[in-house]
Amino acid sequence: MLGETVEPVVDRTVLRELRFEIEEFNAEYAAVLDAGRLEEWPSFFTEDALYVITAKENADAGLPVGLVYSEGMGMLKDRAFAIAKTAMFAPRYLRHYVTNARVLGVDSDGVIAAEANYMVLQTLVDEPTTIHQAGCYRDRFVRRPDSRGLLLKERRCVYDSLLIDNSLAFPV
Amino acid sequence: MLGETVEPVVDRTVLRELRFEIEEFNAEYAAVLDAGRLEEWPSFFTEDALYVITAKENADAGLPVGLVYSEGMGMLKDRAFAIAKTAMFAPRYLRHYVTNARVLGVDSDGVIAAEANYMVLQTLVDEPTTIHQAGCYRDRFVRRPDSRGLLLKERRCVYDSLLIDNSLAFPV
Amino acid sequence: MLGETVEPVVDRTVLRELRFEIEEFNAEYAAVLDAGRLEEWPSFFTEDALYVITAKENADAGLPVGLVYSEGMGMLKDRAFAIAKTAMFAPRYLRHYVTNARVLGVDSDGVIAAEANYMVLQTLVDEPTTIHQAGCYRDRFVRRPDSRGLLLKERRCVYDSLLIDNSLAFPV
Repeated sequence: MLGETVEPVVDRTVLRELRFEIEEFNAEYAAVLDAGRLEEWPSFFTEDALYVITAKENADAGLPVGLVYSEGMGMLKDRAFAIAKTAMFAPRYLRHYVTNARVLGVDSDGVIAAEANYMVLQTLVDEPTTIHQAGCYRDRFVRRPDSRGLLLKERRCVYDSLLIDNSLAFPV
Repeated sequence: MLGETVEPVVDRTVLRELRFEIEEFNAEYAAVLDAGRLEEWPSFFTEDALYVITAKENADAGLPVGLVYSEGMGMLKDRAFAIAKTAMFAPRYLRHYVTNARVLGVDSDGVIAAEANYMVLQTLVDEPTTIHQAGCYRDRFVRRPDSRGLLLKERRCVYDSLLIDNSLAFPV
Repeated sequence: MLGETVEPVVDRTVLRELRFEIEEFNAEYAAVLDAGRLEEWPSFFTEDALYVITAKENADAGLPVGLVYSEGMGMLKDRAFAIAKTAMFAPRYLRHYVTNARVLGVDSDGVIAAEANYMVLQTLVDEPTTIHQAGCYRDRFVRRPDSRGLLLKERRCVYDSLLIDNSLAFPV
């Protein structure tokens, strides 16, 4: 059940430790987005990171197109800045639930392939809470230069939801 | 807060290790179903496994009836095959979120009693994502003959949802 | 990303062990509520505990007001008793999903600050399952006098959902 392109690491203890580290990473990541601290969001990525939000349909078909495509720290920061401004005009609460974290393997360069299911709930003023987006993070993590913690080299948010609402461009 | 029929294991370290193992099992199990790889689904069970989907109302009343009742590998494989065929005609995405894993105890035969809450979200073409099923796994795990990993000897999917839609027969 | 008022503990191993302990606490807590065993609910708190359910809007504004405000074991027991009686007249299933547990720090008195996202799904007879409440636990834990496990000294359930239905006074 390992991904096709990654070398499996056989040591279960190592994989479990990585899972714990990734769970903690994802909890911090979600907390920053839930709190609307968009300016901190790029700090979870490497300088050359790829961040994509795309439909499962497209991802399964191998299509590179997506709703959001950001490559490199500059584009991530631009996105965070643009959305922080937009958010002022459309107040909403978003809440992320990240479950089912799985480490798929570690390649010879130390890049960790991992997945997790995510659900984003949205609450607009005076409206009931709804399911905003459901999907799967397909991630590639690397260790920080100072060895303290992880960074995302790649996060593909592959969503099942086929109806796109106007706030989908928020990072997930 | 232990189940009535299981001998408690007092060693918290052992219980915690089992929880981690079960979390990893459930994440793999969910990933297989989320990917629609139904032919792999029976491989999570023992040859004599019991797999049941039943309403909480019935489970609480001790009724054996359920929406789905499969006993033994033959019935599990039949079910997987039948649904794989059905699924072609009713395209949908299902996504499983498994949380709150708890190990209740280990009996003298080494059978592990455990529970976890599950939620299955469903996305049909051009429709918003909805809550398909919410409930609790009531499980009995045994260790594989080769000691590598666990197998389900029994999984009772006890759902709260009282409205049954036509796709409920999908494994959860 | 630590809270403002707590001293950070730098040892990651200690924080991770606390996370595991809190995850197990929250899973037991949720199981008691999911099973409707309201009389056991106060046993998760200290004698002087504070239990609050409040809107994110109010919490962010630093307002002490909330939908529910219980201080001390007497009020917790009164609440549990009152709701257990009410519940007989309004049958419903509630199911708690607790994810994204984070330990923020431990202060010099050993009080552990932690957060987790929660979602409560509700199923009424003959109705589809709906999102009843989505929010964040803002907790302060202490160790039990006998050192076995944790107790809540403070649990603030800060919800995003702005529409309040008649059952919101159920503990979450």
